Amino acid sequence: MPPPPRSVDLTLVQEWQDGRLRPFQDYLAGEEPLEIRVGDRPISVTMRTAGHDLELAAGFLFTEGLIQRREQLLSIQPASDCRPAEQGNIVRVELDPAALAGLDSVRRNFYATSSCGICGKASIDAVRLRGIAPPNPAFRISAATLCSLPESLRTGQAIFERTGGLHSAALFSAQGELVAQREDIGRHNAVDKLAGWALLGGRIPLSDCVLMVSGRGGFEILQKAAVAGVPVVASVSAPSSLAVRLARELRMTLVGFLRGRRFVVYAGQERIEMEQPADSAPG
Amino acid sequence: MPPPPRSVDLTLVQEWQDGRLRPFQDYLAGEEPLEIRVGDRPISVTMRTAGHDLELAAGFLFTEGLIQRREQLLSIQPASDCRPAEQGNIVRVELDPAALAGLDSVRRNFYATSSCGICGKASIDAVRLRGIAPPNPAFRISAATLCSLPESLRTGQAIFERTGGLHSAALFSAQGELVAQREDIGRHNAVDKLAGWALLGGRIPLSDCVLMVSGRGGFEILQKAAVAGVPVVASVSAPSSLAVRLARELRMTLVGFLRGRRFVVYAGQERIEMEQPADSAPG
Repeated sequence: MPPPPRSVDLTLVQEWQDGRLRPFQDYLAGEEPLEIRVGDRPISVTMRTAGHDLELAAGFLFTEGLIQRREQLLSIQPASDCRPAEQGNIVRVELDPAALAGLDSVRRNFYATSSCGICGKASIDAVRLRGIAPPNPAFRISAATLCSLPESLRTGQAIFERTGGLHSAALFSAQGELVAQREDIGRHNAVDKLAGWALLGGRIPLSDCVLMVSGRGGFEILQKAAVAGVPVVASVSAPSSLAVRLARELRMTLVGFLRGRRFVVYAGQERIEMEQPADSAPG
Repeated sequence: MPPPPRSVDLTLVQEWQDGRLRPFQDYLAGEEPLEIRVGDRPISVTMRTAGHDLELAAGFLFTEGLIQRREQLLSIQPASDCRPAEQGNIVRVELDPAALAGLDSVRRNFYATSSCGICGKASIDAVRLRGIAPPNPAFRISAATLCSLPESLRTGQAIFERTGGLHSAALFSAQGELVAQREDIGRHNAVDKLAGWALLGGRIPLSDCVLMVSGRGGFEILQKAAVAGVPVVASVSAPSSLAVRLARELRMTLVGFLRGRRFVVYAGQERIEMEQPADSAPG
C-alpha cells in the first residue's frame, strides 16, 4: 500500500551557483489532488497540499455555497472504499436532504449565465444574493496591530520555511493574536481550510477576526472571507479590481501591500484606528 | 453601454505610512470573468485579466485537451449575442465535428474517477495518456542565459509595474531572446495566453523555447507546458512535488529559484550547459 499523501516531499536536486553545481536534498511542497464526494457523487477535484483535508472539504462546501450551516453536514470523513493509491485523497460527505436538493442548482462558480450574466457586477451580485450578513461594523483594529501581522504570519509558516512553495492564510484577533493558520499550494485552499476549521468548530461567523493572506488578494479570497463573516482582509501584496469592488459593496475592510510600517486601505477604512504621527500629537 | 473590461483600473485609496494617511490614485490589476462557449454551450468560466482573450480561450481549449490542433478551431471570436454588460467577457468557439464529439468525454480536470483514480500518479498518467510527444531532447540553454531571464521577464511586465498584482509568463529562445510575454491575475491564464498565441500562429510544438513564469511552478503549469511541447520550464520560486514528478516522467527540464547567479535544477539537467567556474578552467 502506498504511503498517504504528504505535505512535504524530499528529493535530490542540483543547485547551480556561480558556475558550481552541488547536489542536495531539497524539501518540496506537497501537491496531490483531493476529491470531495457528496455520497457517491464527485463534486470537485482540487490540487492541494495534504493536511487538514476534512477542514478543506467542509470549508469548500461552505464558502462555495453548497452548505450554509454546520448542521447540514451529517458526516464528513476520508473515503474508505477507494483503492490503495487513492487513500487520503478522497473526502466523503453526507448532507442533509435540503442541502442535497440544492446541489443541482449550484454551479461551481455561481455564474448562471442565463440569469446573472458574465461580468464583474454579476459576480458581485452572485455573492450578495447568497444572503451574506454584513460583516461586523463595530470591529476595530489599530494600524500598529495590522503592521505586526505579516511577521506573525511568517513565523507560523512551518512548511513554507522548508519549501518556499506554499501560500499561507491566518486568522488574527483584533489584538493581533494568532487564532488559526493554514498553508497550502493554493491560496484559496488555505482560506477554505480556515473556513472549514471555523465551521466545524462552531465559530461562524468570524466577526472578530482579521484574515491575513500571503501574496495577492483576489476576488475569490474576498468572496470566501465574506461568506465566513470576516470583517477585515489584509494581504502582503496587491488586490485585484474586482476584489476591491466586492469589499466596497459588502462594506468589508480591505488592506493591501501590508509591509513594514506601510499599508494601503482599499475599502472600509473606518475599522482601522489610525495612530497619530509623533509630530502631530497634542502637546 | 458599459465600457469593455479593462486590464488596469484606477481607484482612489488611502496609503498609511508611519502614522500618516495620504490619499492617492492607485492602479489595480483588472479581474473579470471570461466565459468560453463552444457553440452555445458554456465550457468554463475563469477569472482573468482582460486582454488577449481569444488567445486565452484557444490556449485553454488546447492545454486542457479539448482540441489538439489549430485546424479543429473553425472559428473563435467575441460573442456578439450577449447583453451589454457581458460584452468582452464571452468568447465563442466553433469546433470541428470530431472535437465536438470528444467534448462530452473530457472532464475539466481530467480526473476520471472510475478509470484513473485520484492520486498524483493518476494525474501524471492522465497527462501522459494524452499522447504528448517527448519534448525536444536536443534543446540546450546555457546557465548564463538562464540567469538573464528573470530580468527580461520583469522588464516586460507592463501592467505589473503599475499594479504589483499580476503574474507573468514568457517564452524565450535558447539565446535568451524574448519571444512572447503575457500577464494575468492567474498564472495559469498567462500560460494559456502564450499557448493560445502559439496555437493560433502555427507555432506548436514550442520545441525551441523556455517557458519562464513568475512565482511558483505547480503541476498545472508543467502540464500546460508539456502539452505545448516546451522542453524547459523555469520559475522564480519553488516547484511543487507533483510538478517535479511530472517533469521527470516526461523528461522535461525544470528549474526553480532562478534568481541572480543561482538556480536549482529539479529535472532534465542535460539540457543546461553548465559553465565552468573560473578557478577550474583548464590552464
